[in-house]
Amino acid sequence: MIINMKTLLQNARILKMDDTPIFIGSIVIEDKRIVYIGSDYEQYGPFDVVHDCLGNVLMPGFKNAHTHNAMTFLSSKTDDLALHDWLFNAVFPREKLLKEDDVYHLSKVAFLELLSSGITACFDQYYFPLSTAKAAEEMGFKVVLLGTYNTLYGPKELKTLYLTLNSKKDSLIRYCFGIHAEYTTNDEEVKVISDLVHELHAPFFTHICETKAEVEDCFNRRGMSPVEYLDANGLFDYGGGAYHCVYLSPKDIEIFKKHNLTVVTCPGSNSKLASGIAPIADYMKEGLNIALGTDGPASNNCLDMFKEMMLVTNLQKLIKQDSSVVPAYEVLKMATVNAAHAMGMFDNDILEVGKRADIIEIDLHRPNMQPLNNIINNIVYSGSKDNIKMTMIDGKILYLGRRFKIDEDEENIYQKAQEVSDRIDQELANQ
Amino acid sequence: MIINMKTLLQNARILKMDDTPIFIGSIVIEDKRIVYIGSDYEQYGPFDVVHDCLGNVLMPGFKNAHTHNAMTFLSSKTDDLALHDWLFNAVFPREKLLKEDDVYHLSKVAFLELLSSGITACFDQYYFPLSTAKAAEEMGFKVVLLGTYNTLYGPKELKTLYLTLNSKKDSLIRYCFGIHAEYTTNDEEVKVISDLVHELHAPFFTHICETKAEVEDCFNRRGMSPVEYLDANGLFDYGGGAYHCVYLSPKDIEIFKKHNLTVVTCPGSNSKLASGIAPIADYMKEGLNIALGTDGPASNNCLDMFKEMMLVTNLQKLIKQDSSVVPAYEVLKMATVNAAHAMGMFDNDILEVGKRADIIEIDLHRPNMQPLNNIINNIVYSGSKDNIKMTMIDGKILYLGRRFKIDEDEENIYQKAQEVSDRIDQELANQ
Repeated sequence: MIINMKTLLQNARILKMDDTPIFIGSIVIEDKRIVYIGSDYEQYGPFDVVHDCLGNVLMPGFKNAHTHNAMTFLSSKTDDLALHDWLFNAVFPREKLLKEDDVYHLSKVAFLELLSSGITACFDQYYFPLSTAKAAEEMGFKVVLLGTYNTLYGPKELKTLYLTLNSKKDSLIRYCFGIHAEYTTNDEEVKVISDLVHELHAPFFTHICETKAEVEDCFNRRGMSPVEYLDANGLFDYGGGAYHCVYLSPKDIEIFKKHNLTVVTCPGSNSKLASGIAPIADYMKEGLNIALGTDGPASNNCLDMFKEMMLVTNLQKLIKQDSSVVPAYEVLKMATVNAAHAMGMFDNDILEVGKRADIIEIDLHRPNMQPLNNIINNIVYSGSKDNIKMTMIDGKILYLGRRFKIDEDEENIYQKAQEVSDRIDQELANQ
Repeated sequence: MIINMKTLLQNARILKMDDTPIFIGSIVIEDKRIVYIGSDYEQYGPFDVVHDCLGNVLMPGFKNAHTHNAMTFLSSKTDDLALHDWLFNAVFPREKLLKEDDVYHLSKVAFLELLSSGITACFDQYYFPLSTAKAAEEMGFKVVLLGTYNTLYGPKELKTLYLTLNSKKDSLIRYCFGIHAEYTTNDEEVKVISDLVHELHAPFFTHICETKAEVEDCFNRRGMSPVEYLDANGLFDYGGGAYHCVYLSPKDIEIFKKHNLTVVTCPGSNSKLASGIAPIADYMKEGLNIALGTDGPASNNCLDMFKEMMLVTNLQKLIKQDSSVVPAYEVLKMATVNAAHAMGMFDNDILEVGKRADIIEIDLHRPNMQPLNNIINNIVYSGSKDNIKMTMIDGKILYLGRRFKIDEDEENIYQKAQEVSDRIDQELANQ
């Protein structure tokens, strides 16, 4: 008989993210799930773990809807370069030297940073996705992997991975079909993924309309936008969405509406790489689902949801010349509920009895949260990693008071990543 | 006989910010000043305080070149409002209810936040400046006050304050002349300040060219830009600079060059209030001194130098459509040396023997700093308040490991600020 672990998070301000106001209460977690929210928790005791929130906010963990986690080895090696130089002279030559095991070590550093930013799940696309999955499972982190068709994974393997990874009950890992981008995928590859999408009624994700040049090139080659092209091939027939979406045309927006696609916006990456500002305020008016992503550490560079939240609203205020657009609560939804739904996660999107316990604690006992005039606005406009007191995934506290509660010493994780980073530089120098 | 306190900060990576590379070493501080930087520190012992930096970065504290600290009471009360609404319906009616003692309590919360962001000095403009000074002196924080002519402070009082506050040796408080803005100042007030500037050979600062409307209005009223008008009145004859500078004309830029004026840019505030993006990359090409400021908590809302650093470069990359502009080291200079010089501080601008010990420790043992590929880029692109391990002002550690080392319990400071904030809301409701 397995006795489930019982945890009490008491004395909190609870922000369920179901559009109801913040209220005072406690949360009881049994094993992976929330079993009670309210003030009358004693009946659920005794508890194995009791954590006093000291009046801090408990809310759903942030979901990072676009990452390339293992790119930590490139972080700060590839800055302040023009885009072409960045991709062809800094990123690609180093990525060629990556080994399967490298991705395992590099992903771990990213997961630590995500935990420290209150992020409890991410939507990751990179080489050797199963190495990322292995690191996530060991650390207790949640990942949706974007499976793409390549030499390692043919149609059969992709189908098997999709069915296997998505059928495990309460798994940390989920799987979704996609391609890197229209401009890096040929017609045959598109057909393979389209067939899988239709056979399995699966959603589809890809980078899209990240730069003006990408859209123009696609028009030159195909006489239509990347969104139109992929839609014509049926890739969006079962929903999904796309990363970046800086340059969607009115026709593209109609396609997004028709299939209920999510715009995953990455304002940190789009600004640092000078790609442009996605017109998120306009997309919101059209009723599109908007989720936030950090993109990878080579293009951002940090995996910091607070910076993305500030950027996504401030950039819209700038381009709309209107400081009232994209209000704080909408931003918070992009970082939580909207992103969760984009990632196919409906069991951890809000705080509710029965949901999986992916919960973060926002420390209000910090000067940037004082006075407590408007807690939601404080979180969005003033928050930083410094305010993440606790990060819990599936009922397990993985980060508390700036300490990682994982089996491995974080210095060991840093060292392994440094070794990979240094080795690849050395190999590059020797070429 | 006074025995000076001796402090050893050992085992650090030292970033002097004098354009030399980072090196391994230790720093010895005696009383308020740096007396040794290097590896051979034993001769300076014994030490009263020894702090092991564990390989972390020691660098000059950030200087925040534009704040209205006491506006903490408005933080998150005035968000997502269009500018006119913000100013006339949210800010001004509440500010009218401020009392002298309120500013003392509200400034303290801001100083705590500044400390937690590695900021060791700020350039503050607000009502009741001596209340801000009192709070700063009690907490050990450095402030340059912007003195403006008003009913409380006539020409005689301004002169006395200038001479008194700037003549104290090793003081925490300095004083500088200014006005709020061209559009809130009449000709007589401009003349008073101009006379003082000329009598005392004093630099001058003001808000300028923050919005397009401000510049257009000035042209309509005076047939010239605000910069031209103030220059014509001799206000810049002894240097200084201006806050915001979003819309400088080529003629304005020439005036800035002629008088070696500093552009204090506030990208967080300018974006949140939809004011626009100052063309900092262009100003840099013209050789202007660029300093960073957060602006006040009502318009930003956070006092977080890391967000400003990311914004000041990312926004330039966007408007120049070039990811190589405004590289990381230049950004770090805007937040340290350039800002210090703008604020008239030449005794704490870099780390050097003889300089006052305004030093911060950047924690590299955090995932957002790993691997250690390029520490300067890591700080600018990935850093957050979470990386501020220690903040020292005049040789005193005021913040260490997320704890404030001040005489007052921070919860008491929060409570006092909350009381002021609530009282003003109540008074407003009763009107």
